[in-house]
Amino acid sequence: MVVMGVDPGSRCTGFGVVAETSGQLQLVAAGCVRLEAEEAVSLRLARLFAETQRWIQRCQPGVVAVESVFTAKNAASALKLGQARGAILAACGQCGVPVVGYEPTVVKKAVTGVGGAAKEQVRFMVGQLLRSATCWPLDAADALAVAICHLNTSRLARLAGQRVGVEL
Amino acid sequence: MVVMGVDPGSRCTGFGVVAETSGQLQLVAAGCVRLEAEEAVSLRLARLFAETQRWIQRCQPGVVAVESVFTAKNAASALKLGQARGAILAACGQCGVPVVGYEPTVVKKAVTGVGGAAKEQVRFMVGQLLRSATCWPLDAADALAVAICHLNTSRLARLAGQRVGVEL
Repeated sequence: MVVMGVDPGSRCTGFGVVAETSGQLQLVAAGCVRLEAEEAVSLRLARLFAETQRWIQRCQPGVVAVESVFTAKNAASALKLGQARGAILAACGQCGVPVVGYEPTVVKKAVTGVGGAAKEQVRFMVGQLLRSATCWPLDAADALAVAICHLNTSRLARLAGQRVGVEL
Repeated sequence: MVVMGVDPGSRCTGFGVVAETSGQLQLVAAGCVRLEAEEAVSLRLARLFAETQRWIQRCQPGVVAVESVFTAKNAASALKLGQARGAILAACGQCGVPVVGYEPTVVKKAVTGVGGAAKEQVRFMVGQLLRSATCWPLDAADALAVAICHLNTSRLARLAGQRVGVEL
């Protein structure tokens, strides 16, 4: 089972792909897409759409797990984050890959055991869980954490016969 | 000059295309894309992306004018509206059509003379300006109003040598 985690942002979006084989987690790929602040918003979002499709085509995930934020500093920043999420989700929809959303506290708890863990702590634990010393950008580590969260939650849910995450 | 106006919404998005020939406004096409609430969010956004591209390919606008909202009831509704805008803007960016944004009060004032005009009043004035009796859905009339707003604002700005709207 291959899962692509995404940590959407209006400036930088993290992508992290993790495979699970016989209960063992394995790093497939991780990285970030940074958008130029000088570029027109429509061109930035078109690039985010295209990059999301490229990640899906390259890694062929069975599911995309996205960090879902339901709070924001203000309506303007919620709109900007929403626009980035819109481009990413539309790309997933067009590729026909199902999407599930996880709240940040759920992701942090699944990886570190603490819902309020710092980003650096999340990155450290992701490295431990994937047996990798790579010092990823924080957004890429966050994306890997969402993928791991989905894989671990699904394994437990399969045992209990439950559904996981919020379908998006 | 052909302008496509868009009134984005998480449930229903209005599209309205207006041409200007020798200072005369002319209706090209208008309609709505309604998204099924039961469908997965990613599939809804993929459809909105595809429909936006279809409108652009069909009407070949030189510019897309989008109603820009910077306030919302709460962060959750701002995120939902942002997601719809993200899919629409990404489609415009991928088609290479420049996008400009206008605030609702600016659009209403350009069409009715009053920034706080009701949606029905906007629809009535759009009908008058386009010499058309068609009773469009309110979201389609709003989209036509954004297109008319851009055409009128650009005409005045060209005379004054100014730029118009907010580039998106």
